[in-house]
This record gives sequence, C-alpha cells and structure tokens, in this order.
Amino acid sequence: MSKPRLGVAMIGYAFMGRVHAHAWRSVNRFFDLPAEVDLAVLCGRDEAAAKQAAATLGWTETVTDWRDLLTRDDIDVIDICTPGSSHAEIAIAALEAGKHVLCEKPLANTVAEAEAMTAAADAARERGVRSMVGFNYRRVPALAFARQLIEEGRLGTIRHVRAHYLQDWIVDPDFPLVWRLQKEVAGSGALGDIGAHIADLAQFLLDDHITDVSALLETFVKERPLAGESSGLSASADGATTGEVTVDDAALFLARFGGGAVGTFEATRFATGRKNAMGIEINGAKGSLVFDFECMNELWFHDHTLDAAEAGSRRILVTEDTHPYVAAWWPPGHVLGYEHTFTHEIRDFVEAIATGTDPRPSFADGLQVQRVLDAVEASAAEQRWRAVQR
Amino acid sequence: MSKPRLGVAMIGYAFMGRVHAHAWRSVNRFFDLPAEVDLAVLCGRDEAAAKQAAATLGWTETVTDWRDLLTRDDIDVIDICTPGSSHAEIAIAALEAGKHVLCEKPLANTVAEAEAMTAAADAARERGVRSMVGFNYRRVPALAFARQLIEEGRLGTIRHVRAHYLQDWIVDPDFPLVWRLQKEVAGSGALGDIGAHIADLAQFLLDDHITDVSALLETFVKERPLAGESSGLSASADGATTGEVTVDDAALFLARFGGGAVGTFEATRFATGRKNAMGIEINGAKGSLVFDFECMNELWFHDHTLDAAEAGSRRILVTEDTHPYVAAWWPPGHVLGYEHTFTHEIRDFVEAIATGTDPRPSFADGLQVQRVLDAVEASAAEQRWRAVQR
Amino acid sequence: MSKPRLGVAMIGYAFMGRVHAHAWRSVNRFFDLPAEVDLAVLCGRDEAAAKQAAATLGWTETVTDWRDLLTRDDIDVIDICTPGSSHAEIAIAALEAGKHVLCEKPLANTVAEAEAMTAAADAARERGVRSMVGFNYRRVPALAFARQLIEEGRLGTIRHVRAHYLQDWIVDPDFPLVWRLQKEVAGSGALGDIGAHIADLAQFLLDDHITDVSALLETFVKERPLAGESSGLSASADGATTGEVTVDDAALFLARFGGGAVGTFEATRFATGRKNAMGIEINGAKGSLVFDFECMNELWFHDHTLDAAEAGSRRILVTEDTHPYVAAWWPPGHVLGYEHTFTHEIRDFVEAIATGTDPRPSFADGLQVQRVLDAVEASAAEQRWRAVQR
Amino acid sequence: MSKPRLGVAMIGYAFMGRVHAHAWRSVNRFFDLPAEVDLAVLCGRDEAAAKQAAATLGWTETVTDWRDLLTRDDIDVIDICTPGSSHAEIAIAALEAGKHVLCEKPLANTVAEAEAMTAAADAARERGVRSMVGFNYRRVPALAFARQLIEEGRLGTIRHVRAHYLQDWIVDPDFPLVWRLQKEVAGSGALGDIGAHIADLAQFLLDDHITDVSALLETFVKERPLAGESSGLSASADGATTGEVTVDDAALFLARFGGGAVGTFEATRFATGRKNAMGIEINGAKGSLVFDFECMNELWFHDHTLDAAEAGSRRILVTEDTHPYVAAWWPPGHVLGYEHTFTHEIRDFVEAIATGTDPRPSFADGLQVQRVLDAVEASAAEQRWRAVQR
Repeated sequence: MSKPRLGVAMIGYAFMGRVHAHAWRSVNRFFDLPAEVDLAVLCGRDEAAAKQAAATLGWTETVTDWRDLLTRDDIDVIDICTPGSSHAEIAIAALEAGKHVLCEKPLANTVAEAEAMTAAADAARERGVRSMVGFNYRRVPALAFARQLIEEGRLGTIRHVRAHYLQDWIVDPDFPLVWRLQKEVAGSGALGDIGAHIADLAQFLLDDHITDVSALLETFVKERPLAGESSGLSASADGATTGEVTVDDAALFLARFGGGAVGTFEATRFATGRKNAMGIEINGAKGSLVFDFECMNELWFHDHTLDAAEAGSRRILVTEDTHPYVAAWWPPGHVLGYEHTFTHEIRDFVEAIATGTDPRPSFADGLQVQRVLDAVEASAAEQRWRAVQR
Repeated sequence: MSKPRLGVAMIGYAFMGRVHAHAWRSVNRFFDLPAEVDLAVLCGRDEAAAKQAAATLGWTETVTDWRDLLTRDDIDVIDICTPGSSHAEIAIAALEAGKHVLCEKPLANTVAEAEAMTAAADAARERGVRSMVGFNYRRVPALAFARQLIEEGRLGTIRHVRAHYLQDWIVDPDFPLVWRLQKEVAGSGALGDIGAHIADLAQFLLDDHITDVSALLETFVKERPLAGESSGLSASADGATTGEVTVDDAALFLARFGGGAVGTFEATRFATGRKNAMGIEINGAKGSLVFDFECMNELWFHDHTLDAAEAGSRRILVTEDTHPYVAAWWPPGHVLGYEHTFTHEIRDFVEAIATGTDPRPSFADGLQVQRVLDAVEASAAEQRWRAVQR
Repeated sequence: MSKPRLGVAMIGYAFMGRVHAHAWRSVNRFFDLPAEVDLAVLCGRDEAAAKQAAATLGWTETVTDWRDLLTRDDIDVIDICTPGSSHAEIAIAALEAGKHVLCEKPLANTVAEAEAMTAAADAARERGVRSMVGFNYRRVPALAFARQLIEEGRLGTIRHVRAHYLQDWIVDPDFPLVWRLQKEVAGSGALGDIGAHIADLAQFLLDDHITDVSALLETFVKERPLAGESSGLSASADGATTGEVTVDDAALFLARFGGGAVGTFEATRFATGRKNAMGIEINGAKGSLVFDFECMNELWFHDHTLDAAEAGSRRILVTEDTHPYVAAWWPPGHVLGYEHTFTHEIRDFVEAIATGTDPRPSFADGLQVQRVLDAVEASAAEQRWRAVQR
Repeated sequence: MSKPRLGVAMIGYAFMGRVHAHAWRSVNRFFDLPAEVDLAVLCGRDEAAAKQAAATLGWTETVTDWRDLLTRDDIDVIDICTPGSSHAEIAIAALEAGKHVLCEKPLANTVAEAEAMTAAADAARERGVRSMVGFNYRRVPALAFARQLIEEGRLGTIRHVRAHYLQDWIVDPDFPLVWRLQKEVAGSGALGDIGAHIADLAQFLLDDHITDVSALLETFVKERPLAGESSGLSASADGATTGEVTVDDAALFLARFGGGAVGTFEATRFATGRKNAMGIEINGAKGSLVFDFECMNELWFHDHTLDAAEAGSRRILVTEDTHPYVAAWWPPGHVLGYEHTFTHEIRDFVEAIATGTDPRPSFADGLQVQRVLDAVEASAAEQRWRAVQR
C-alpha cells in the first residue's frame, strides 16, 4: 500500500496508446510490483481530442506539448506511442531530462536516429535512467517460453528460421493513403512496421545476430486515394484525389545468422486472408519450435531426442502457471490475448526501474533491428547480398 | 463525464471475483456506455483478506457482511461471485432490496433454489430491477456470431449437437478435496461447474430447449486428501487425512431438443491433457459450426449450400469489427482472451440497467439449465431417460 | 517363387469388392508373405456384370452362384463382400466346406446369425480353417500403433472414450432409398454400417468390453424417393415414387466398459460437412490419444508423465518404418490412404492362414460388436440402460 | 477387353521404381483407358537383384542393359527411374528409337543435358513419340484442383507464393554419404531433389515463369561416413571412413515471376521433425490457397470476395468425385495417399499416348525447372540476383 509511486506520461493515444493505457492501468492489478503506477498525463497535440482520450482511457490530465513533461517532477516515465518519425527527438530529450523511456517500435526511421538514441540511452544509463523499446511479442508467454527452451539447449544447434508476418489490410487498391503508407512519416512500409517485429523476435529467440541479408521489396499498388479519417488499421478515402505510395507493401529477405543458421523472412500487407499472422518456425539439431500469433496461447515443440516412432510436434498450451507471466492470470486453458503482451512488457519495465536494472529489448537491440532493416533496403536496391552493420 | 454513476458491490474475490473485477474496471475504458461504473465495495468474510484483495483488485472499500450492502444508497448492483450454495439467499435478498443482481453460474445448487430466485427476479423486474446469470461463454465473440448465423437460418434445421467441456485438473488422485468436490458447497461436480455451461450454450445457440436426457455420472476417484490452501483451480493437500468425494468427476448425457435435434454432452475433469476445452459442434441441414474455446477467436463454418467441390469448413477469425463486441478492441487478428467474455457480459448488463431492458441470460434461463442438470442427475440415478421439467 | 498358392474367390464387386480386389492384388507386391495369392474367381449373380468387373478388377474367371465355389479344390479362401443379410448363409457354408473366410462387417444383421456364424467358425478352427471379420480400421497404422501404446500402459487406467463416425451423404432429403436404408437388407442404418466400426475399434484399443449402453436412434428423413442406379455411396432417384426409410439415420449411445471407462459414441449420416470422419479420443490417467480418419496418417498422443510446462498433445506422423505395416511402403512422410487398411488386413489374414494361427478380429469379436448393437437398439426402444449380452 | 496393348519397360527399381511399378500395375484397374498396360521388362544392372525385384514388383522379364530395350518391338514405353546423371543418355536414345519416355525428375543434372533432352523430345514429337517428366505432385488431386481454381480466376492477380519442401532425414551427422549427397550422381542436394518439385509446382499453379532469383545454399554437415547398404531414404554407415558432402543440405531462394508475383522457396533436409512437408501458400487479390502434402487430401481456400465477417480459409476435403482423378477411387472422405499421384501421372501419360496428344509436364517444362535451379546455384555463388535463362 505504501509502494513508491511511478508517474507516467504517455504521448499519443491512437492504436498503440490505447493498448499501452490498458497495460499501465492493469499492471498493478495482476502483478505484485515494487512500485505503483500513476496514469498521470496523456499528451496529444489536439487538446480536445486528447482530453476526450484521457477521459476514455483513464489518464488524470493532458498536455499538448511533450516538452512540458520534461521538467515535471511528478513524471518519472515517458511512454512514446507516436509514429516513428518523432521517436528520436522525444526519446533523446526525455532521457536527457532524466525520464525513463519506453519507446514503441521501430526504434526510429533511420539508423542514424537509432544510433543517436542508443547513445543517449547509454549516457542516461550511467545516471540510472532506463530505456526500453516496445517489441511486445517477446512477452507472448509462448515466445518467452520458446526462448527458455532454446536457452536450455533443447533445440541444439539452430539450422533454420522461417519467419513471416502476414496481414491483408491494404489488399483493396481503394484503401486510402494513410500515414503508414508514407515514407516521410512511417520510414518504411511492411518492413519497418511488421518486418521489424520478426527481425527482433528471431534474434531474441536465437540470442544471435543477423549478419547478412538478401532482399526484395515490392509495392504492388503504387497509387492510392488520399486518406480521410483513420483509426488503428482501418480508414476511409476522402474522394477522387490519389497520391503515391512511397513505402513497400511487402518485404522478403533471406538471412544468415552469426551462429550459422539461415532464414527466410517475409513481411507483407497483401497476404489475403491473413490478419495478423506473425509466425516463426525454428529447426535445430535436437528439436524444433513453431509459433503462430493467431493461436498465441500455443507453442509447438518437436523433441527430436525422443524415439522416432513417438516423436511429433506437440501443441503446448502455454497457460500453465509455470509458464512465463501466466501465474498472474487464470487457470490453465483460460487463454490470454493480444493486450496481455503489453501488460507483461510494462510489468518488466516497471520492475527494471524499481530494481535499478536494465530492461530488454534495449535501445541497442532496437538499433540492431534498424541496421537489419537498413541492410534489407540496401540489398533490395543493389540486388545483392549485404552485410548488416555492427 | 457527466454519465450517471453505477455503484457496484462484489461479493467474493477468488477466481471469479478477480475476473469480474477486471471486467468492471475495464468496461468503460473500451465501451461507450450510458453509465460510469464505480467499483465501490468488495465484500468478504475475512476482513484482512478482503482489504488486501480490494487493494489489489482496485475496489474502494470493503465490508464483511453482504447484508450491510442492502441498505446502502451508493450501491446499485450486487455481483455474486461466491460458491453456489450461497447464491439463493444473497440474490433474493438483494433483489428484494432493489439491487440489480449479476449472479455467477450455476444459478443455484438445486431447482428449488433456482425457482425461488427466478420468482424473486420476476417480482423485481416489475420494479425495474434487473438480474442476469453469468454464463459468460455466450459473450465469446465467436459464439455470439454463431448465434447470429443460426438465427439467420444459415444452418437450416438443426440435426445434431455435440458439446463437451473437458478439463484435467483432478486427474491426479492426490489432488485434494477442495470445495468444488464437496456436494454441500458445490451442489455437483463437473455437471454443475462446467456441464452447466454447455447446457446453457447449446440451448442459447439453438434457441431451443433440451426436453429429455439420458445420463451417466461417474466419480473415478472416490477418496482424496483433505485440502490445505487453494486458489483458482489449484490447491495443495494438507497431509494424510482423506475424505469422500461427494460429487461427480464426469457427467455424460444424451439429449433431445424440442425442435427435433439430438445431442451428446460430456463434462469431465478427467480428460487428461485438456485444460479448458469447451467445445461444441452443430450440424444443420444447410451447414455446420464448430467451436473450441482453446482457440476462442475462431469459428468454423461449413456452408453446405456451396458446390460440394468447393465446400469445406472455414476457419473464421472472429476479430473483424463487424463481429459482436470486437469493434471495441483491436484490429483484425489481434486476438482476445478469456477475460474479455466477462467484460462483454458486464457491458451488456450495464447497458440493460441503463436502458431499462432485461438482460439475458435471465434467472429463468439459469433455472432452465438447473432443470436440465436435475434431470441428468435423476436419469443417472434411475438409469433411464427422463423428461426435463418445464 | 515357389511359395504355395492361395486361391481366392470374392463374392460381390461393389464398393467393398473393389477395395478388396485391390488389396488381394497388391499384398504380395509389398509384403513378403509365405503364400502367393491367386485372384481366381469373382462371384456375382449378374453374369455380364460380373465378367465386366472381373476384367476391370483383375480376376481370372467368374461364377454366378457362390455355392459352386464350395467344392472347388482351387479355392482356398472365400471373401464375402455382399450386404449383411447374406453373410450368415454364405459364411457358414464356406466354413463347413473347409474354406477360410474373410467376411465384411457387420458380421451379420442379427445376433442369432452372428452366433451361428461364430459357432461355425469355432468348429472350423478345429479343422484348421480360419475366419476373420473385416473391421479394416484396426489396420490403420496409427490405430495399430495406438493399440501398442495402450498395451504398453502408456495411457494408464482408461477413463474416457469418445468416438464418432460422422458422414453426410444422405443429408439431402431427395437422396434415394438405396439398400443401405432398408432394414431387411442392411439390418440397421448408421448403427450397423459405421457405428459397428467404432464399437469394434474402442473395444479393440482398450482390449475391453462394453458392458452397458444407453442409446438414442433417430431417423430424420422418414420417406425418400425410390432408388435408381447406385454405386458406392452415391445414387440417383428414379422418379416420383417414395418409400419408407426403415433404418436409423443416427445412433448415439453412452457406454460403460468392463474396466471402468465410460464413453460416448455417435454414428450419423447427417453430420453436414463430415465425409468419413471416424474419430476417437481416449483419456487415461497417464496420457491420451486422439485420432481422426480424415487425417489417417496422424496419431495425437499426450504424455501426462512429462512436466506440465512441456506437455502437449503431439502429432505423430505414423509413417516411420517402425510403425505397424509402414516398412512395406514409402519413406517417412509419404502418406498412406484408405485402401492400405485393406491390404494390411489381407496381409494378416494370409499370414495367419499360412502359419496356422487365428487372425483377429475373429467372428467372436464380430459377435461381440453385434451384441453391442443389439443392446443399443433395445436400449433405444425401451428408453433405459441395457446390459450387453455376454 | 480388346484394347491395344502398351508394352512398358522400367529402368531402375529402387524407391521410384517401386512406386512406378505399383502405378503401372494399378492404372487399368481404376481408370478406363484406351490401352492396356503390360509390365513387360524390368531393367537393372545386377541381374539377380533385378530378377528378384521383377518377381516382387510384378514384371514379366528382366534385362541388364537398357540398350537392349531400344530395338524390341514389344516395348512401347521406357520409364526412367534411375539417378539424374543417367537420364540424358537413356532418354535421348529411347526417344530416337521411337519409344515414349517417362523420365523421373529432375529432368537432368545440368541445363545442357536438359536442353539436349528437350531437343530430342521436340524431334520425337514430330514422329508421334511422347515424353513426360515425373513431377508427380501436379497430380495430387488437391493441387490439380488448385490449378483449376487459379485458372478460373478465383484468386485474382497473384501477389505471393511461399513454398517449402522440408525433410529431416540427414539431420543426424552420422547418417552416411549416400548417392543423393554426391554431386557427380545427384547433381545437387535438396535443391534438385525436392527444390525442383516446388519450383515446378509454383510455376504450374500460377501458369507463369520464375524470372529472377536470389539464393543461398548451405551444407551444414560437410563430412559424413561412407555409406554401406541403403534403400529409399534410409541407409547405414559402413564404418570409420568419411567423405565430403558435395551437395547442398538446404537451398533457399527469393523469386520474381513474370506476372508480378514474388515468392520465397525453401528446400531442406534439416527441418527437424518434418518428414515430407511439401507445402505452398498462394495469395491473390481475390483469394488464397494453402496446401501441405502431409495432409494431402486437403486444400485450404480463402475466398476474399465473401463478406469479411464470414470469410475464412476453408478446408476442402478433396475427395469428391467432381475433383480431379477422384471419381476413380472411393467415396468422399476415404482418403488417398502418396502412391496415387503416380497412378494419376501414368493415367495421363497412357491417355496422351493413346490419343496422340502431348502430356505435361513436358521435357521443356523440366528444362525450365532446370534453368531455375541453375540460376539458383549461380546466384548463391555470386551472392546477387540472377535472371533465369529463357
């Protein structure tokens, strides 16, 4: 009851803001943490809209300029839920102001920005200021458990990764030109939005780095109607005017890892019928894992050390209280959903702040992903294999 | 901001209390409702434990005697999350005191209690007091959508229902004698705890009544160690003393419906490897549906009016914003979990209260389920088909 | 090359005859057996049709009266592929004439017939004459392997069986009144045709007997057009005349086994969208199995002795050469089909004849199934539990 | 009965020879064809072994030198089931001798050989001599049906292909150095053996050509014990001596198609737990298809023209008699297996010969696949995108 208070300000309140707000609101209700979160300030440029969002999402007050947060003593944490183009400026200023920073992915739109952010995070760490990038899928219990199995050597030497992130929300050529389809705001298309997730996830699970890539980027629909209203991943067109799509619709790449594994990666918004199909399959000398986010409570594990007549990929329902994060929730078989990954992420972030440790994924982890994306873009442009910068 | 306040008191704070609390806390954050919920009072007999629970779950104050809630003007709703043996007394008193009542399932432990509760609900309705029983699975989006498809006639005349609710939490004969295994508290075993859900669900989906049953009840493990600590569905034994299991481990029954369909029902806590596998398959002259709660975001629909060469059971990911309840949450493919069913239930309950309509499932619906369970027990005892009382 | 010749005569050449012929023709090509099969005679009442069938299916000659086979020295085996109403007469005569008999299931249309056949088989056994009933699903490699796992105790004490055999070929009320829908020829409907399979299979897998049943039989469509041409499970109507359906469309029953297990069984021709979905799930104290014939190369095995965090139902692809029957075929992952079950059945039958051992399922096994079906019919008629005759 | 006889000679009797023999033996039993196949001669260099194989597989006589077949009037067809290194010499000689040729895949080990074979096939065609390459997976009913759906425009413009062929038979580093791991015999490793299948399949399904590739080849285990006995895909080592693996263990490539689609392809023998997992997923603007050979009787079809709330990928059980090839076999739901694909292939080949038409896949189709494989090898060596030769 007398836990230290952690004052949080969140910038942005669209899709990511809504799910972050739910996580901040819920985290102390389910996890016994050394600090009590206070949903203090919601920041948005449009004052009326921000006030409406704060009322709906449960934040105490609002500000319209994020700079106003930097000098407030009641704000300990800044949670950045804005598009990628604004991440660097906000995160660096916040870290320099001594605020712990949770930054949505991708860390930045360019390697240069990500490098500056990582330098700022390194400097801030010296002063006890924590930073983390929001690759939430690391906190799917099934994937956190997958990491454990690999760490314990249950898969042996890893040979293959095949990862995909398949969506279909812009298959219709009349879907409008929302900000996610504009390079100057979004940085890239499927590559940075969803490809970043599987690049991070594969490197996290293998505890290894992608060293080389060969890639292909494709924009299937090159002109779209200009956008009217949009929210989340849905939007309506505002009429006859069209504009150029300046990002990729799909990004495919082959990869080599430092440890000798090879992989295929595919991120697309044109996989008709696939809504949020983030999947990964990993083959090692001693076993294999398969995961698909559309069935996020399941992890498939093939144990190759069993007798061949009995071996098979087993569907582990990752809802036992011995599985990562699960003991906080419901009895076995009472499945979790998308938003839980954020509650878990914020649980770990709060604990790291309270215990003075560095949370992962760090900004350096985010930078590494950015360098992979950068190599992918270069490879696609040059039509040849490219090494990932280290 | 100026919405009318709805003061809520919740009795009980174990498994059901935790998930109800989360739903009460979240409902206004996701749904635009005509009233704003206030988590006012948590009621529990053990004062210290209740205070701890209130702090964790986010309730403002606590009381130790539910009777104290009846005369408080700041309490509009009483939410009963206690074992079945106490439902009738609390619910009837609350309704008579003019409190809207949400009562966890099963409605009661006996038909007589359920009848008295239904009479009280009918009388209260005349005074604008609402009541609802907590068959939360009706609010799984996939099942609410299944109901729509059947209502629209997409399945044609229904021929077959096969429903099961499979768990395995007491397979180990050393699992202790918790309250759910004692007839005087729980009323029955798998039958009332989980069989009630599938009896309600089948009748809800078909909009029909089970008229006749033939049943089998079995207690595989007849003696168990006495229980020490327990929470949710897990528990530890306290030593060498054992006691008699007085409820069924498994309940199986055949059923006939008023509209001519036939069905198999199975509820068990001995389906090794099944954690919370509530599933139903419905075959009609024009199509079929399949649902399994372990994949709760999916509904399988076979449309038999398609050409045979093209027909097949299709996996509908029930995460589109045109599906029931889904628009409040995330984009397509961002899956929901167990607790959402309660948020949906409470959303509908709050809306019914605010708009002066009667929510379903009503106490009468709960009574009908109780009558089915009663016929099942009688049939098993008499070893013959039994009609369900109407 | 100098293996003893085994002369075979097959009676009937419709669906079952076609698949038996393929098995007789293939068995020596894949299995190294102590006898070489000779497809000597095909027997059919319509001489022209029989000759045509013999040419197509690869039989050397034809006869029109099965009695002519009894005295021929070149015929060692009689394979009965006719409707159930003729089984008893042919099988008894053949056994008395010293011919080994393979009889399609169900063994007979009545218990009395099955008893007489079993007596004839017992008498013939004394003279070294072998008999077998054609429950081919015992020879699905996945199910033969399931039997091995249960025999080794991998499932522990069996608690639950849930078995179904779901088809949909007569959902259309205009599908005509073929022989399978006429009691005087077929004996019963879904019950004997497909329910017999799952009754046999469950008893085979558990090595146990069903002792008591409670049942429901239903005929959803009571009048149908008279049939014109038919083959296999398809047919066309011949016009406006209709006739009464005198068999069940669906048979559902609960069962108790001698060893304490309980089960649900369902056989239906009205499970819209299910073509040949013979499935069984078995739960034991130490593990569980799931099988579905539509994925006949897979067996799902949950090993409950593993740590809960790692346990899950595993999909064993039953195509390893250490699996029953599989070494004769292709490398792992090169899947088998329906007809292989018959080739395996005939492999075992030929081997039993050549080595002078008694093959299973015996006529006594077939009689036991017939007694279960008989108890099901009696239970449904009397609306109460019935013991199965022993 | 008086159908023209088609005399067949088969060269080779290992894995492919066994399955071809079964297909030749069965094809007239199930399909009504204008010619009757005669299994005349089996050719193998080891006379005793060939005689044994002929007896087992059902061939009338044997020869030890395939050249002896060329001048025999009783041989109409030569079926080449030997390793790739011998294909060109045999096929060209056979075609020049006026024999119809069925050649197992890959067509050859080099583009030059494949070009010479295609030229020979073109010349022979002028003389009414037919040739075909054995990409048997085109004759999986589900894939033949997939081709129909795409041809009818049901998928709209194709955007994505993701194809894989995953095996695990050499994961164990002690698995010996069989001929399939030696470049001089096999030509390449996973690439030619199984990658060839998915390259052909994708081009067949899309009716399009792969124009550009970027690839990666990997040999995970570079030294292996020398091989003793081997059969099919299993083998034993003969002791301590090791040799170099001179082929790829895994081949991964990105591809662009002439029509604008992009694809990922992966062939590997190191996908632990995957036995013969040949799978393909195709996304088009109007729909998608998914296929996995381990469930070869199923095709998943997502029809994107349906209302989003109802759309989903449907599991079509491709066992209806309106599906390609299926009417010859069993009722719906009675599933087919691996060997049926060869019976279908030979059915089409016999019909083409008898009716004087050209069967597909032609040698030109095989050459196109060889050119893709060649570009893959060049791309991997040069580490850049390569155009496929036309």
